[in-house]
Amino acid sequence: MARRTAIIDIGSNSARMIVIERTSRFGFYLLNETKSKVRIGEGAYEHGGLLQEVPMQRALNALHEFLHIAQSFKVRKILCVATSALRDAPNRSHFLSVVRRELGLNIKVIDGKTEALLGGIAAANLLPILHGITIDIGGGSTELALIQNRKVVDTVSLDLGTVRLKELFFDKKENLEKAIKFIHNELQKIPEHFKNETAIGIGGTIRALSRAIMEKNEYPLDKLHAFTYALEDEKRFIDKIITAPVYKLKKLHIKKERYDTIKEGALIFKEVLSHIRAKRVITSGVGVREGVFLKDLLRNQHYRFPTNFEPSVRSLLDRFCINEKQNRCLFRFTKRIYDALHPLYDPDKKYEKILLIASKLTNIGIKIDFYDHHKHSSYIILNDLEYNLTHQEIATISTLVRFHKKKLPSKSHLKALGALLPPTDTINWLSFTLTLAEVLNKDLSCPDFSVEYSEGVILIKSAAKLYLAKEEIKSVEKPAPVAVLFRT
Amino acid sequence: MARRTAIIDIGSNSARMIVIERTSRFGFYLLNETKSKVRIGEGAYEHGGLLQEVPMQRALNALHEFLHIAQSFKVRKILCVATSALRDAPNRSHFLSVVRRELGLNIKVIDGKTEALLGGIAAANLLPILHGITIDIGGGSTELALIQNRKVVDTVSLDLGTVRLKELFFDKKENLEKAIKFIHNELQKIPEHFKNETAIGIGGTIRALSRAIMEKNEYPLDKLHAFTYALEDEKRFIDKIITAPVYKLKKLHIKKERYDTIKEGALIFKEVLSHIRAKRVITSGVGVREGVFLKDLLRNQHYRFPTNFEPSVRSLLDRFCINEKQNRCLFRFTKRIYDALHPLYDPDKKYEKILLIASKLTNIGIKIDFYDHHKHSSYIILNDLEYNLTHQEIATISTLVRFHKKKLPSKSHLKALGALLPPTDTINWLSFTLTLAEVLNKDLSCPDFSVEYSEGVILIKSAAKLYLAKEEIKSVEKPAPVAVLFRT
Repeated sequence: MARRTAIIDIGSNSARMIVIERTSRFGFYLLNETKSKVRIGEGAYEHGGLLQEVPMQRALNALHEFLHIAQSFKVRKILCVATSALRDAPNRSHFLSVVRRELGLNIKVIDGKTEALLGGIAAANLLPILHGITIDIGGGSTELALIQNRKVVDTVSLDLGTVRLKELFFDKKENLEKAIKFIHNELQKIPEHFKNETAIGIGGTIRALSRAIMEKNEYPLDKLHAFTYALEDEKRFIDKIITAPVYKLKKLHIKKERYDTIKEGALIFKEVLSHIRAKRVITSGVGVREGVFLKDLLRNQHYRFPTNFEPSVRSLLDRFCINEKQNRCLFRFTKRIYDALHPLYDPDKKYEKILLIASKLTNIGIKIDFYDHHKHSSYIILNDLEYNLTHQEIATISTLVRFHKKKLPSKSHLKALGALLPPTDTINWLSFTLTLAEVLNKDLSCPDFSVEYSEGVILIKSAAKLYLAKEEIKSVEKPAPVAVLFRT
Repeated sequence: MARRTAIIDIGSNSARMIVIERTSRFGFYLLNETKSKVRIGEGAYEHGGLLQEVPMQRALNALHEFLHIAQSFKVRKILCVATSALRDAPNRSHFLSVVRRELGLNIKVIDGKTEALLGGIAAANLLPILHGITIDIGGGSTELALIQNRKVVDTVSLDLGTVRLKELFFDKKENLEKAIKFIHNELQKIPEHFKNETAIGIGGTIRALSRAIMEKNEYPLDKLHAFTYALEDEKRFIDKIITAPVYKLKKLHIKKERYDTIKEGALIFKEVLSHIRAKRVITSGVGVREGVFLKDLLRNQHYRFPTNFEPSVRSLLDRFCINEKQNRCLFRFTKRIYDALHPLYDPDKKYEKILLIASKLTNIGIKIDFYDHHKHSSYIILNDLEYNLTHQEIATISTLVRFHKKKLPSKSHLKALGALLPPTDTINWLSFTLTLAEVLNKDLSCPDFSVEYSEGVILIKSAAKLYLAKEEIKSVEKPAPVAVLFRT
């Protein structure tokens, strides 16, 4: 099932390619991402959108080498889209035909609404949201998609972009008011029903802002995708970036490679957020490229994953699971024990989903090293469990997996992830539930058993001997003064 | 090539099983390890070695469930050996036939010299040593193997073991002198030519001692295999453990599950070390079980890996490499650049081997996540690059891989691994060499090039455009004021 696809996205600012490997029907992961700052739109806004010779040559060179990369991975399919810079260029067909002739590559120039749809598809499928408005700020345009119930229901594209603003206003040292007026003018194109408390931020500018906010706040997770903040809390910080002189950007946690357009981008973002009356921002690590991939992958699925499909979990299992049967067994055992014990610690079943995901991923670290595999599983989860889950959920899953063997979560660990985790008591019980499931299947024979709880005693009944399980349970730390008794 | 083997080892103290998957001709990794403290020899030393009923039943139960685990992994081969407890038991054939009848499992009782040979084969193939003497302290016996030029040239087995000593002396509160006399008596069996500065420690007791020493010294790597210490430095600490009352063992960094036999084991170890005049101890994470596996795997190879075979590197690549062709290319590029630049920073070619291993492993982290993959590669290396390398080498490889992208190693990183690393200047140059190799193959087309150095200028000549490479090199930190020029 190793089928690889390359997706190229030519923006005004940079061209990027991702290479994705499908690991199962809907499972996939990223093999490569390459970026080149071709700035194909350089100088174009001042020449009526006309692409200039030097930038076109840069783009050609970059695309040529992108194709080498695709070749090296033996991709079966290359999907290449171009957005506003080519959209607006009167001489684009010249460029397209040169690329087709010299590289054999077909570039599809997509209109603004399609671009918005692609970002929307990526966000709706890969972020833990039901509703919201995606805002994708690019070099030449800004796209919005209205998502309701995980479906893109409307889109709009604005002629607002970081490079565009930079060339039209900032480079000329025009005052900010002029730029703001220009922006407000464009914002009138946004339909009235684009009002939503939840804004979903796509693109390099918004990622850079989120990254800066995370650093400023010493946020405990090093994970951008799905990072969420309340606009109220960060408004002043964003204002600071807009008005700061360039030499102060470093102190505001902005990286050098973003200096050139961050102020323009932040300004657009702020104005759009205020226009749609957003109250919170969810950062998206995915955008148009992932949208292109998903639109292709899910073309017979109305651009939606099957219900309850967990893209990251599937992908991790495809890459790292060493014993599928045992994995399914552990899942069932965890569920059975949870069903018996949850009234004790999670009566509203708030954490069932999380616990069950943890049960699936608990052993993936064995692929790195059997010893300490719970540590490795937790590491993989923290670093690559991404899609469709909140940071609270990811931190909790990683904690449960980290400590599923014998010991309850350590104080230092709980402190480090801090506010992202459920109450310690709940964590300890969830962790114990998972551990007990593992213990009962210690001999990997998936023995049948029943579990009951009453008055401080967890009673396990089974026709199997559970010899290793009984030995193992002795060293398991318990979340409360309970006894585990066996009747075998 | 997924062929799985289970190896069971029945010692006096515990029975253990490992399940190993072969990933290529000589590549392999561990899927499972299960241990049960069956203490099959319990009470035997006091009854002329006669196995007692209850311990035999425990062993039967444990083996039964071990076989479930082997089944669950669909192993093709089960190799089961038993050591001193069964060796010494007059009624062993009764036990063997019960196991054969009830479980269909054939246990091979190996003599002491074979046991020593197996430990020796494991150490000689998987530790970074040429010569030395393995000391494998078990519950009932202690085995020594003399290794010269990575070959086991002689072996000896002593009737000294932790459980044996415990039951004969410590449990009876006999004074230490009696035990020491008993030990000295046995040591007379060691042939005269077993004198060596290097002792290789095998088995749970010696691992526990090493673990304690590492904790006491706040050793920077969390890695037991190949951990080395000078006996002179730790003699007093080992003495402390031998004479400490049990309640003080925790403070000496000994884990609870080792309390029962650590003192006996430490005493045997100390006496053997002194007898063979060892000056340094290398800890082995592998022993009889790995020896059984390797003896089988390498049966047509004189129990030796092919020359220059790197078992851990091969295994990691088998599990994590996503593009073999590129990997080989990066290796060649690194070598070519190193050949041109090493007079600047490594005239004696001290670090060539390490750099080239780093070039092979630099991209394995992509399997976890493309973003930050250098961090993930480094994590995998620190946790699972094990065999045939010193800790200095592993720490250096992990550092080179960690920082192979753009930035030179950070100060905090260098400080953490501290004394294990080469001088910072050397590290920076090695890291830069690896980075330059990656940059030159940025488009993965493996372009031909030559490299020359003269007077502060690194000149790259190539018929290829190297467009992405030239863009990338701009953001690479250099280890010294050198310029990288291209002639393409």
